[in-house]
Amino acid sequence: MNVITLVTDFGAKDWFVGTMKGVLLRAARRANIVDITHEIPAGEIRTGAFALAASCRFFPKGTVHVAVVDPGVGSARRPIAVQTTDYYFVGPDNGVLSFALVHETIKQVRVLENAKYFLQPVSRTFHGRDIFAPVAAQLSNGLSMQKLGRTLKDFTQLTWPEVKRTAHTIAGEILYLDRFGNAITNVERAALSDLELTQCTVSGRGKWRCPVGAFYQGVPRGQPVALIGSTGRLEIAVNGGSAAKQLHLRIGDRVVLRRRNR
Amino acid sequence: MNVITLVTDFGAKDWFVGTMKGVLLRAARRANIVDITHEIPAGEIRTGAFALAASCRFFPKGTVHVAVVDPGVGSARRPIAVQTTDYYFVGPDNGVLSFALVHETIKQVRVLENAKYFLQPVSRTFHGRDIFAPVAAQLSNGLSMQKLGRTLKDFTQLTWPEVKRTAHTIAGEILYLDRFGNAITNVERAALSDLELTQCTVSGRGKWRCPVGAFYQGVPRGQPVALIGSTGRLEIAVNGGSAAKQLHLRIGDRVVLRRRNR
Amino acid sequence: MNVITLVTDFGAKDWFVGTMKGVLLRAARRANIVDITHEIPAGEIRTGAFALAASCRFFPKGTVHVAVVDPGVGSARRPIAVQTTDYYFVGPDNGVLSFALVHETIKQVRVLENAKYFLQPVSRTFHGRDIFAPVAAQLSNGLSMQKLGRTLKDFTQLTWPEVKRTAHTIAGEILYLDRFGNAITNVERAALSDLELTQCTVSGRGKWRCPVGAFYQGVPRGQPVALIGSTGRLEIAVNGGSAAKQLHLRIGDRVVLRRRNR
Repeated sequence: MNVITLVTDFGAKDWFVGTMKGVLLRAARRANIVDITHEIPAGEIRTGAFALAASCRFFPKGTVHVAVVDPGVGSARRPIAVQTTDYYFVGPDNGVLSFALVHETIKQVRVLENAKYFLQPVSRTFHGRDIFAPVAAQLSNGLSMQKLGRTLKDFTQLTWPEVKRTAHTIAGEILYLDRFGNAITNVERAALSDLELTQCTVSGRGKWRCPVGAFYQGVPRGQPVALIGSTGRLEIAVNGGSAAKQLHLRIGDRVVLRRRNR
Repeated sequence: MNVITLVTDFGAKDWFVGTMKGVLLRAARRANIVDITHEIPAGEIRTGAFALAASCRFFPKGTVHVAVVDPGVGSARRPIAVQTTDYYFVGPDNGVLSFALVHETIKQVRVLENAKYFLQPVSRTFHGRDIFAPVAAQLSNGLSMQKLGRTLKDFTQLTWPEVKRTAHTIAGEILYLDRFGNAITNVERAALSDLELTQCTVSGRGKWRCPVGAFYQGVPRGQPVALIGSTGRLEIAVNGGSAAKQLHLRIGDRVVLRRRNR
Repeated sequence: MNVITLVTDFGAKDWFVGTMKGVLLRAARRANIVDITHEIPAGEIRTGAFALAASCRFFPKGTVHVAVVDPGVGSARRPIAVQTTDYYFVGPDNGVLSFALVHETIKQVRVLENAKYFLQPVSRTFHGRDIFAPVAAQLSNGLSMQKLGRTLKDFTQLTWPEVKRTAHTIAGEILYLDRFGNAITNVERAALSDLELTQCTVSGRGKWRCPVGAFYQGVPRGQPVALIGSTGRLEIAVNGGSAAKQLHLRIGDRVVLRRRNR
């Protein structure tokens, strides 16, 4: 029973995700389909890429990950499939797969051009149903990648914002705000290992200082704290509250960590 | 592993859908349950009927489709099951199944009256759990329709708004607004095949003109376009935006297509 | 194919639930995972406890119920597993399991302390992924409870608000507002069996009277009615509308039922 996951911006209100699942099950009757999220804001490729990268490695080997955040559907952007050591990735070649692929060992990339594996007629507006789902089902069934189309050397990669380091500071930025109002940054656990840090400063629509702690309740209720979150990156949180709301945080806000003076 | 789908207005916040799934799995342990949508606005039978009709045919043969948008739960409206050549449909006889059934070849319709297949005691407010889920599970297990109750000759059918044609125009209306703000109309692809159309006019709280195109990015970003969407019907969209918001569209707004002057 | 259910406050927008499912499927490949709800308001333990209690008994014997509403994640609160005659329950020992356990025959309670069954490294902020999901998967696979940790005699129990009775009245309160705006109270069907009641009074931001009926359409459209809902408790509803909105109801509002004068 192979696993197929879905990341989309299709939302819950319409029948789009259900329809993709119908197509998947028609070709891969025993697939176990898992929703990662369908609440990526419409057309926000970076957010979709982030969600996929944060979750894909927790799935069993052989899982087929499908990501459809596809504002260019029907235009010239190519549909692709990527085989890595552990997984398959299927989606538009617009960068939505790229953050996940940074951490994978890529074996091959193929353009989806063999229309034999598509649902006919292919619409101009719903390739999730007509191209990505049927191809994902076939990969889940064990179809060889080479049947899908020619090899690609290259695929679209989104730029990842790098942290900046000095002797006494690490400067990063906020990448994602989760439903609890926690702000996930690009500062990784490894970047902190050689520093003893006491203070984090967040600069956006205000300027906020908070200690670096280990868990939410390590500060008094209602107080902000910076900690290593579940993605292995520094997060800004408020114990029992929403850092995003309370500190008016936005994606792109600057986060600076300062070394303890001895 | 049979597929059972769900269309409801139960939403995601409560335990209603989960409870139905518990009941389904208790009787049909190996069922593969697929959510089409649970975000039908409370009691909006037409919207539920539309969502089911747009998605049901993409599922494997033998799928049991359950639709519970049931403002009259507990009153005199009858619970029914319909067997077609390809599927089973289960729900209240209030029209929620009727748009889907237009495209199916019906073999038999039965009233659900054999309480042996219900969850006892049957509540007055949650037939999704107490009647529709246990009956759907039994159908998925292969129970014969005739065990459920007597045959019905008739069932409730919602009226479908027909398009109006003149020599030079086709006039339809907006049926559904999706999460992207695309407005799906009742004008079908087939209705357009013998016309060369250049212009679409939408009349609602404003009057808007747009070209007829093939895909979203066929017009500049922020511009409206009419195109054949994934349901095979004309949709009004805005490239990279929401037609519903930008053009203030509502269900029922009039859409007129005009033939090209030569 | 064992069933594993999830009640969380993780919402739909992030990848948290999907990630838990990946971890579950990695260890229990054939598990059938059912979402009860993920829309418990952030950190509202009581609401999570209520949702679990309202739904858990509808699932097949042997189901593993996982509830993660866990504002104290990473602090001293203990992770536990409870085996009852019919089910397993897994979650933090903060009361979220306690309403469900009231109706169960408990066989044993264990602290989750054997790190061999955890996902390593265990984060400080996402025990749903790192502790509860991998343990639930093992229980679903048949792992013996005694492998998980030492026995607990006690666990955290939330207090349930009791109804107050006089010769002529029953007084309860509103416990939960569902998506339809129905207000579920703590007055159980059994409490009503020996009374003939004609009138229900709800006192909150206003004072409202309504009849006690059998189903929504037993009163005219737009009118309030008190009825026994699907949880077996008295609910305040409005036929075709939202009692919560129309009557300005809130959790904790007082509900009094009066006996008929003869």
